[in-house]
Amino acid sequence: MATHYRIDGLQYANWSEKVFRQMREGAVDAVHVTIAYHENFRETVSQVERWNRYFERFPELIFKGLSGSDVALARKTNRTAIFFGFQNPSPIEDDIGLVEICHTLGARFMQLTYNNQSLLATGCYEKEDTGLTRMGREVVAEMNRVGLVVDMSHSAERSTLEAIEHSSRPIAITHANPGSWHPALRNKSDTVLKALAQTGGMLGVSLYPHHLKGKNDCTLESFCQMVADTVELMGAGHVGIGSDLCQDQPDSVVEWMRVGRWTKKIDYGEGSVSDAGFPPMPDWFEDNRHFGNIEAGLRAVGLSEQDVAGVMGNNWMRFYEENFQAAAKPVAESAVA
Amino acid sequence: MATHYRIDGLQYANWSEKVFRQMREGAVDAVHVTIAYHENFRETVSQVERWNRYFERFPELIFKGLSGSDVALARKTNRTAIFFGFQNPSPIEDDIGLVEICHTLGARFMQLTYNNQSLLATGCYEKEDTGLTRMGREVVAEMNRVGLVVDMSHSAERSTLEAIEHSSRPIAITHANPGSWHPALRNKSDTVLKALAQTGGMLGVSLYPHHLKGKNDCTLESFCQMVADTVELMGAGHVGIGSDLCQDQPDSVVEWMRVGRWTKKIDYGEGSVSDAGFPPMPDWFEDNRHFGNIEAGLRAVGLSEQDVAGVMGNNWMRFYEENFQAAAKPVAESAVA
Repeated sequence: MATHYRIDGLQYANWSEKVFRQMREGAVDAVHVTIAYHENFRETVSQVERWNRYFERFPELIFKGLSGSDVALARKTNRTAIFFGFQNPSPIEDDIGLVEICHTLGARFMQLTYNNQSLLATGCYEKEDTGLTRMGREVVAEMNRVGLVVDMSHSAERSTLEAIEHSSRPIAITHANPGSWHPALRNKSDTVLKALAQTGGMLGVSLYPHHLKGKNDCTLESFCQMVADTVELMGAGHVGIGSDLCQDQPDSVVEWMRVGRWTKKIDYGEGSVSDAGFPPMPDWFEDNRHFGNIEAGLRAVGLSEQDVAGVMGNNWMRFYEENFQAAAKPVAESAVA
Repeated sequence: MATHYRIDGLQYANWSEKVFRQMREGAVDAVHVTIAYHENFRETVSQVERWNRYFERFPELIFKGLSGSDVALARKTNRTAIFFGFQNPSPIEDDIGLVEICHTLGARFMQLTYNNQSLLATGCYEKEDTGLTRMGREVVAEMNRVGLVVDMSHSAERSTLEAIEHSSRPIAITHANPGSWHPALRNKSDTVLKALAQTGGMLGVSLYPHHLKGKNDCTLESFCQMVADTVELMGAGHVGIGSDLCQDQPDSVVEWMRVGRWTKKIDYGEGSVSDAGFPPMPDWFEDNRHFGNIEAGLRAVGLSEQDVAGVMGNNWMRFYEENFQAAAKPVAESAVA
């Protein structure tokens, strides 16, 4: 029987031994973790240093993941492989050479925008979406070359469609849901989801309450039926989980995510004055120990065993195996042969 | 027959396609290149970016070396593996976490000092040598852990002996000669050379004219006899080449090497007012095409074939194979087993 991997396409917890142990209790083989929201290059390096210390302290629980084979190694050694990603291109500043540097340091996903206009593309909260910028087109090509995946989770529609078209390799939307199910600004149109799937891309369905129909009152059945409908829309190989779990974070962190250093005012993002902090999670998905609930829920809405395995991790596994390495270098290979 | 590798333990040329082609003409399988003298972390990253562009432009000539097996790959594919090193700990600034970051980016050697006192140890031009500092002891242990080799080429005697003693893995003096042959401030005492060898360390003999008896008038025979005598002193497995070739550099670069940003005056280092720039090389070693002259010279002074092969590259090869990887991690290994 083929291995059934369990992979989470995005988390941003307040990391601790407790959270790492919950990953093991939940049998999570790999997690893509956010290590930068608005951090510049040097600040991002400090985040890598922080993770290096976690890897040194908890080698029996976690290690740094770089390739699909590391997910298999994680399964084999009862650990969780941690893959780094950025929710903003701020770590590369205005320097295209930092794309390869960040990949060498372990980054495997980079959003071209958070909610605002970036040097590369337009975020989903801007009024006007002008698509990929001049630098954006160059950086996407460089990301394709080195094996850093374009993530358009927080980008606006036109920018997302242009990234899908311009990228020579599949891209990802690591954490979002279909807007047709719940019309949040961060959720995606059927047009985007179909274009994503047609080019081999992946959607990670999100458990962040602002992305859920009914927010934290959303039922497991409603969520799983949405997943089944999305599998129907995109095809079985293109849907995974991207929980957006922000466990144990103080509300000050949601403020850093939304406000960074770009305004002196408060921006509530998907929240509001009366709902400013992290929203409570639905009771059927509170932390890494609850992935089994989703797996059972997907079976209950009638998804086939193969599709359940695909959504729970095997689709991300295939995507990781194909998209984290440098593009083939004909010269070096012919030299070896 | 065992492969005879050809490895240069240190160069700092004005890099160009011409120099890379000369490496191939000289059949040099691997070169340890200096990428930082006084550069801080961000400036060092820019140097890695610059090399990444060389690797992208000249993949049929060079590639980034990370391990001993890359030297074998270089031989197999008729290319030169380029290994990064720092002649100063300036790239790690005051942040021990940058040791692992720099290793991840490819650094495999780091001098604890250039000529001056550093945060870690004392350079060979200081009046007083106080040995390893508090941070120096911590950084050596961290370098041992991740597989970044301690290089004491420009360090003072006591600091060098303390580094040899404190380091749990062999260290290197990548480019220097015995002071008993030519008493330059940068050359090393027999005490240091013997302690280095007894702990499995390596000396790379230097072709930099200020390190040679008679400077650029030094004969090939005198140089090769010195090598044979050093093999006698240290044992056959502990001597390699570290040419310190600074080919095609303008004199402004020797000023950066010596002065950095630490003084507003001019410091002549091993030179003098009347001899301020790069000294001319001996005519039997002007660039990478001349390694064959040294090999022939070593045979002419009576070194055995095995010892010639060791000095020309096989000793560095063994050292690279044993010292560039992280120290064994018992937990992860037992988890795999």
